[in-house]
Amino acid sequence: MRILGIDPGLQRTGFGVIDAHGHALQYVASGTISTMHMERGDLPARLKVLFDGIGELRSRYQPDAAAVEIVFVNVNPQSTLLLGQARGACVTALVANALSVAEYTPMQMKLAVAGTGKAAKTQVQLMVQRLLQLPGIPGKDAADALGLAITHAHAAIATARIQEAGGVARRKTGYYKTGRVV
Amino acid sequence: MRILGIDPGLQRTGFGVIDAHGHALQYVASGTISTMHMERGDLPARLKVLFDGIGELRSRYQPDAAAVEIVFVNVNPQSTLLLGQARGACVTALVANALSVAEYTPMQMKLAVAGTGKAAKTQVQLMVQRLLQLPGIPGKDAADALGLAITHAHAAIATARIQEAGGVARRKTGYYKTGRVV
Repeated sequence: MRILGIDPGLQRTGFGVIDAHGHALQYVASGTISTMHMERGDLPARLKVLFDGIGELRSRYQPDAAAVEIVFVNVNPQSTLLLGQARGACVTALVANALSVAEYTPMQMKLAVAGTGKAAKTQVQLMVQRLLQLPGIPGKDAADALGLAITHAHAAIATARIQEAGGVARRKTGYYKTGRVV
Repeated sequence: MRILGIDPGLQRTGFGVIDAHGHALQYVASGTISTMHMERGDLPARLKVLFDGIGELRSRYQPDAAAVEIVFVNVNPQSTLLLGQARGACVTALVANALSVAEYTPMQMKLAVAGTGKAAKTQVQLMVQRLLQLPGIPGKDAADALGLAITHAHAAIATARIQEAGGVARRKTGYYKTGRVV
């Protein structure tokens, strides 16, 4: 299963692609879709860059599923509104590209990757590097996105286990679905 | 010029289509894209309904331009986040369908339609009915969306006047672009 992780942001949206064969994880690609060079006020144009960027990732890497970070309310309401719109564009791009979208909170991602929901950014970066045997430390946005893809791989294993045991696994996010979907 | 107005909302997104020939306005269609029947927690599926709905409007009515309401911060931050994501999906759908997107605040719309930025919802509905010579009063979401289309028609006239006078008209929203683009 090839998983595309997305860490949405209006200025920088991180992406990470991994292949998961059971517990074996393999790095495929990662990076950011950036709108930092663009006119800040032209939101439609910036959302289009996110939409087109995700479409490009889809056709280049042909992922089977996507995992997106659940974003939370910012202290600045205006930032919340902007982040919400960026996330809306990312999720829309994924579903428009016929990808199923699983949603995880940052805490679920940190728990899956670093073993604690309170892991620092740098800890996530180091653990992602270790888990995917990367030659260098990934950037923060890419590390988060790769972490989301890893979280989804773990959740898929958990879901399969529950199904084997005859239980009812919740669609898409399995074990990890405890956070609010926003 | 055929204009598609969009009043974004997660539960109900209003739409309105008008033809504008200078000052002459003609009603084409209006209604809502609703996700009210859907599971509240499945945000990706709901955003897909908005995306597909706008794609359908685009192919059915072939608008030349779109006008979208600028949304503001809600008292409830969680609602702000959800509305942001719905608006992100709508704007993304419009730009993905190669439509230019103009943005207007509710106040700009009310000013254009009812002559005062503080007009009540019902006043907007009545003025939209009168301006477009509708046989009945349009629903609130549809009225707002038609109002946005009317606002854009007025702005286009203003922009053309400025250009004729040799001035520099700002792209897309012309005279009416005074609000914050969020």
